[in-house]
Amino acid sequence: MQSENSTRATCSGLTKEYDVYTVSETGIGNGRVEVCVEDTVTLLLNDTRIANLTVTPAELEEFALGYAVCEGLVPGPSAVESITVDGLTVHIRTNAFHEERISPETEIRSSGGVGVKTPWHELAAPVQGNLLLDLDTIFGGMDTLHRMASTWKSTGGTHCSVIIDADGVLQSHAEDMGRHTSVDKAVGKALSAGIDLSGCFMACTGRMPAGMVAKASRAGVPVIVTNNAPFSTGIDLARRLDMTLVGFARRPRAVVYSAPHRIRDI
Amino acid sequence: MQSENSTRATCSGLTKEYDVYTVSETGIGNGRVEVCVEDTVTLLLNDTRIANLTVTPAELEEFALGYAVCEGLVPGPSAVESITVDGLTVHIRTNAFHEERISPETEIRSSGGVGVKTPWHELAAPVQGNLLLDLDTIFGGMDTLHRMASTWKSTGGTHCSVIIDADGVLQSHAEDMGRHTSVDKAVGKALSAGIDLSGCFMACTGRMPAGMVAKASRAGVPVIVTNNAPFSTGIDLARRLDMTLVGFARRPRAVVYSAPHRIRDI
Repeated sequence: MQSENSTRATCSGLTKEYDVYTVSETGIGNGRVEVCVEDTVTLLLNDTRIANLTVTPAELEEFALGYAVCEGLVPGPSAVESITVDGLTVHIRTNAFHEERISPETEIRSSGGVGVKTPWHELAAPVQGNLLLDLDTIFGGMDTLHRMASTWKSTGGTHCSVIIDADGVLQSHAEDMGRHTSVDKAVGKALSAGIDLSGCFMACTGRMPAGMVAKASRAGVPVIVTNNAPFSTGIDLARRLDMTLVGFARRPRAVVYSAPHRIRDI
Repeated sequence: MQSENSTRATCSGLTKEYDVYTVSETGIGNGRVEVCVEDTVTLLLNDTRIANLTVTPAELEEFALGYAVCEGLVPGPSAVESITVDGLTVHIRTNAFHEERISPETEIRSSGGVGVKTPWHELAAPVQGNLLLDLDTIFGGMDTLHRMASTWKSTGGTHCSVIIDADGVLQSHAEDMGRHTSVDKAVGKALSAGIDLSGCFMACTGRMPAGMVAKASRAGVPVIVTNNAPFSTGIDLARRLDMTLVGFARRPRAVVYSAPHRIRDI
């Protein structure tokens, strides 16, 4: 499996291709899949840093104009004098910037999940433990995940995370409106109960950026599974940390993006 | 339609019930639906504010423990001496807090979308314009939304927003890994083209918290439609601003949460 991959522009954003293992009803094979790129953009308004935002790094000029209006930083598009894109930094010049409107509470924020420029960039230590999972245990974990998502069933508005051991036994679960927060709660419950997380995997709903992978890594969970898509950052971090990342896990199909050595059948 | 509603605990979180209009193949009726509550929690670590986070306000003690470990604020659960929940403020006491690890860039962040304690709490002006939409135009907008989501089709990893006028003509669209950011980009493109947004509606993928509704409001878009669930904050804000919020819009079904007077058939 290649560790680095090609990046190419699409009509509406940036994607990257990754070599993966594919699991399907016909067995385990190799494949190459297209993944959405995640990156961090810094917005400056008249040279004051307004926000670091997690975005797909495309159409940044339109993004900056829309953000300035939609977040109420300027009264309207006519108040924007110029927008300059310099790599992943965007400079907005306006004749209507009231610095007092930028409180400490709005100055730094993320619109795509956990905060930006977080320490996951510095994470380097591979996860420990010698967990070995059957594919069937992983799919069983997804079944458990869906079974535990009671608030999702009644509202359609939550994410769910479960922590499950190598025998398929549920150790903790949590639902929350945020996918990151559902991980925090599931980990918090398992730690409160004294569970050894190095012998467990985590199954989650929702997409998988680096922030989610980093949470599992810091908690010591070596395998993370989702029913949904990963982002490029999630795959890159999982590969760097030798964590096993499984996406689109919908029995009998799944995509294995990293560290397949923890899955017995591969 | 009632403007305030009951809140009750469920087994795994907090939900709230709302009176709505339901659209289905048998016509338009009244209904009562359960909606996931969104709220903002402040985390203090040895009295230093670490984060404001958008969460489902339940299981806050486990959340704080998991967050502290998963974000690397403490080396492990044994470093946490106590966790005290006081309403929506959570105090964590630890013997291993290194204040220098909390950089300005990690101090304030959100794990559930756009930043917290944002000015949407202060938004009060109702949206303007006399837009009147056919239900069929709204469903047509959802068809357009799905047709434009080309990166979603290849990666499964994006959100998409489209801006469409009352005649059903597409005015702008954008895809991004973040639902909030896709709105920023779609609005930025429409504003660049000089579109009058008061005569348009916006169709989006993904759930609908107040942050999304606020963006549409500031951009002057009076109607916002999603194929997914709203949060309590999104409904409450839309009602306060007299914005039309439509959720679970999947032809021939939809749920209308607020301001039905902009939909001709209701």
